[in-house]
Amino acid sequence: MLLGEVVGTLVATRKEATMDGFKFLVVKSLDVDGKVAAGSVVAVDAVGAGVGEVVLYATGSAARQTEATRDRPCDAVIMAIVDTWEVDGKEVYKKG
Amino acid sequence: MLLGEVVGTLVATRKEATMDGFKFLVVKSLDVDGKVAAGSVVAVDAVGAGVGEVVLYATGSAARQTEATRDRPCDAVIMAIVDTWEVDGKEVYKKG
Amino acid sequence: MLLGEVVGTLVATRKEATMDGFKFLVVKSLDVDGKVAAGSVVAVDAVGAGVGEVVLYATGSAARQTEATRDRPCDAVIMAIVDTWEVDGKEVYKKG
Amino acid sequence: MLLGEVVGTLVATRKEATMDGFKFLVVKSLDVDGKVAAGSVVAVDAVGAGVGEVVLYATGSAARQTEATRDRPCDAVIMAIVDTWEVDGKEVYKKG
Amino acid sequence: MLLGEVVGTLVATRKEATMDGFKFLVVKSLDVDGKVAAGSVVAVDAVGAGVGEVVLYATGSAARQTEATRDRPCDAVIMAIVDTWEVDGKEVYKKG
Repeated sequence: MLLGEVVGTLVATRKEATMDGFKFLVVKSLDVDGKVAAGSVVAVDAVGAGVGEVVLYATGSAARQTEATRDRPCDAVIMAIVDTWEVDGKEVYKKG
Repeated sequence: MLLGEVVGTLVATRKEATMDGFKFLVVKSLDVDGKVAAGSVVAVDAVGAGVGEVVLYATGSAARQTEATRDRPCDAVIMAIVDTWEVDGKEVYKKG
Repeated sequence: MLLGEVVGTLVATRKEATMDGFKFLVVKSLDVDGKVAAGSVVAVDAVGAGVGEVVLYATGSAARQTEATRDRPCDAVIMAIVDTWEVDGKEVYKKG
Repeated sequence: MLLGEVVGTLVATRKEATMDGFKFLVVKSLDVDGKVAAGSVVAVDAVGAGVGEVVLYATGSAARQTEATRDRPCDAVIMAIVDTWEVDGKEVYKKG
Repeated sequence: MLLGEVVGTLVATRKEATMDGFKFLVVKSLDVDGKVAAGSVVAVDAVGAGVGEVVLYATGSAARQTEATRDRPCDAVIMAIVDTWEVDGKEVYKKG
């Protein structure tokens, strides 16, 4: 899974029918030191994440292994909201 | 899913038989700030997208999870046409 | 799918038994402007492509969705020979 | 599989229900010469790895091929703890 | 598939049980001109490859499509030993 920060939302009225009702979130990748990394993605939200939250997202076929996304053309899903992580014994991030 | 702009079309008469009838679109990737990003792809269109439109496309096995593309050698599909998205509360793009 | 030019051939006598009889082609990736891009691959040919031809190839699990490659350890397949494509209304490539 | 060093841990209370009980480890990629490489990942632990250990991790659908992770939205799993490896006949790493 | 040279071996005693008995080989990627390319991987050997040999390896779900690796958390497999390849009509590599 990759770390990311939810920075925005996206609206798409015309889409594959099986994607109706999904919330699309714009996510910037973070590296393990908490800095913005290369790569960003539009992910489906499976856990009620909102703008400003730090999340874990899964890509590829793993993105279809949630109740919501099964068998859908979805290749990125937010599957956890991060509370905290640490690297080398030091806290990098803690949810405010 | 990744953001992209449809910039052209591609014709391939000789192809795997299961790919007959598909519309191949040339897509340049966009980053979440709406700028052209590294990476481009030829995607199958599942939603009636046209040149000049901003779209979401799914890659990998997700690209086979549409009615049209199931069980076909397709690794990139346009599955939504973007109306608008915003980052940090500011509108980055709005369909004209 | 990605654009590529077939630049050569590869011979491998000792291989997983299910790969017997395949033609391995060496493919250099092209960007949508027709220039050689980063990345190259050895792909199985599913459409009778030859050296010098411009092709579309699919990667990942999509590469197993052809008659020839199903259930085989193949992660790149040439599934179309390109006739022509255009970007921003201008023809980038036309098969000679 | 890729080489990595476990550098930390991550806590996420709110997550897809099927991910309950997993240990999330923060992993920095290593190249085959044992140096930190580009790319890092948050992986599920399937073998009892701890901070400071050098591991192999699998990504993509392979990450769901362990007892623990089957059918879950997990795209990276630690599936081995490395004892030693060598390159060009010289030992690069040996577990202390 | 990608080209690589087997440069070493790796030992991991503690691992997912289904990976017992596998030979892990350290592989440096080669580009189609035979030069070392970015990217390296630890792959399972399905064809009896040894250090110093030039091989083809498959990644992703394709890496589970061999007798040995089916249903295992393996995302890279050596599925062929290369005899020779040529680019633009010139031999790039020939097995010694």
